[in-house]
Amino acid sequence: MSFELSLNTGTTPNLTLEEAIRHTAEAGLSHIGLWRHLLVDGAEAAAKAVSAAGLSVSSLCRGGFLTASDAAGQAAALTENRRAIEEAAALGTGELIMVVGGLPAAAHVLGGAGDRGDKDVTAARGRVADRLAELVPYAAEHRVRLVLEALHPMYAADRAVLSTLDQALDLAAPHPASAVGVVVDTFHVWWDPSLSRAIARAGTEGRLAGYQVCDFNLPIANDALKSRGMMGDGYVDFASISRAVAEAGYTGPVEVEIFNEDINNQDAAITLQTMKERYAQLVLPSLQGAGSLV
Amino acid sequence: MSFELSLNTGTTPNLTLEEAIRHTAEAGLSHIGLWRHLLVDGAEAAAKAVSAAGLSVSSLCRGGFLTASDAAGQAAALTENRRAIEEAAALGTGELIMVVGGLPAAAHVLGGAGDRGDKDVTAARGRVADRLAELVPYAAEHRVRLVLEALHPMYAADRAVLSTLDQALDLAAPHPASAVGVVVDTFHVWWDPSLSRAIARAGTEGRLAGYQVCDFNLPIANDALKSRGMMGDGYVDFASISRAVAEAGYTGPVEVEIFNEDINNQDAAITLQTMKERYAQLVLPSLQGAGSLV
Repeated sequence: MSFELSLNTGTTPNLTLEEAIRHTAEAGLSHIGLWRHLLVDGAEAAAKAVSAAGLSVSSLCRGGFLTASDAAGQAAALTENRRAIEEAAALGTGELIMVVGGLPAAAHVLGGAGDRGDKDVTAARGRVADRLAELVPYAAEHRVRLVLEALHPMYAADRAVLSTLDQALDLAAPHPASAVGVVVDTFHVWWDPSLSRAIARAGTEGRLAGYQVCDFNLPIANDALKSRGMMGDGYVDFASISRAVAEAGYTGPVEVEIFNEDINNQDAAITLQTMKERYAQLVLPSLQGAGSLV
Repeated sequence: MSFELSLNTGTTPNLTLEEAIRHTAEAGLSHIGLWRHLLVDGAEAAAKAVSAAGLSVSSLCRGGFLTASDAAGQAAALTENRRAIEEAAALGTGELIMVVGGLPAAAHVLGGAGDRGDKDVTAARGRVADRLAELVPYAAEHRVRLVLEALHPMYAADRAVLSTLDQALDLAAPHPASAVGVVVDTFHVWWDPSLSRAIARAGTEGRLAGYQVCDFNLPIANDALKSRGMMGDGYVDFASISRAVAEAGYTGPVEVEIFNEDINNQDAAITLQTMKERYAQLVLPSLQGAGSLV
């Protein structure tokens, strides 16, 4: 099977792990993408529950936050990411999504520590590369791929100094494709004038490790993180991006990850039903159409 | 004189043209960047008032909105932009800032007409290139440079399908550098991993036509357009961008353009005083330091 729809639990933040698994299975899906905070009884227990429901884990969200400029912050990030790698391995997913972190000057926005004067984005990117190099051997040992996620530039200050797919591929380049991949999230990259070329490059380089779909809504939500929308409700052209992803050789699960106040708080069964319909209508035909050409 | 500070009237939206001119002159500035809606008595009258106060116009904001997919919308855009070119010429500024427009699907967000189903960003970019080619001869005749502005990708859907400086330079490439230039606005481009290389390219290609400074604030404002901040209040590293701009050979005026609810509504004299101080502290030293090296 190709292009199997997966619920990323960021879409249903009010559900426990058990509830999310149940809803996903009841909706007839085969995959679920898990956030780490749901692993309250440990990754092994979660793996058993997922498997018992006949599901597979498409990815674990998330590792990252690698931009600390002080030794203590860097050591803490390595410890935390090694734990995330172990959890991904235990869950039987090869894919650990990495949100690389923002500027030290903006760390306080997400409740962290950091140097309020440090706005050097180039230096922050350098530290991401350094920490990544330190994590790769541990990930490879555990047969887990660190999957770099380019975030929309509106999050460059506080969440990720990694803003484009090409930049993610450049960051991945020194490492084996089996250890460092990239994910295409439509919300984050739809605007990029180099997108179709970069997706093709990700395919050629063997690094296309995930495809996440959701829409880009306007107006931008009061909490900017929650501007993501159900496919079809915003301004993303899913046909062209999906075609490019399939033409690049991707056949894996497709996660729906939507942070959106209304969707997050509605009945999860409605969310799952709607995302199945929209996926079938707006995304899957272009994935399959392209697939038949290659 | 190089790097002269200029008030872009977007920073003081409550002032009439006369008031903006008076405040700018009283603050000891030499330049003012005008928005078209201030030209209520025509461009010639505005030119006289600016000149009588001993000021020069650094740029006219703005032309653009070139993405209409229907013939009537395209004709209207050409008419409107020809008028803007005439006004820029009358004002004695060679620089007409161009915000190219968003997707037809999002035109309604800014009160325009458009096809709610048309989310094809590649096609929209193609229409921008087509309209630009139609406007260039008229701009050249009037000795006005069409100055392409890459907008932050958070505005890609509704305001500009032009999101990076490299993309602006690619769009400009078919035309003479005297007729099509680019502007660097720190808010819009600070996050771009290709920024320093793209600024150098703009210099090499003779297209660096303007430098606008303001900060990138967090959280993103409820009206996302108003997330711009006074230099130093947000997350932009003005030193590195300013150095790159000066090293690329730019010596022209530097506009401060801030859409921000608090700043826009405070006493304009305070705004001008603060922007002078922050410019002297955070921007000018890096422009001058780099300038001495070239």
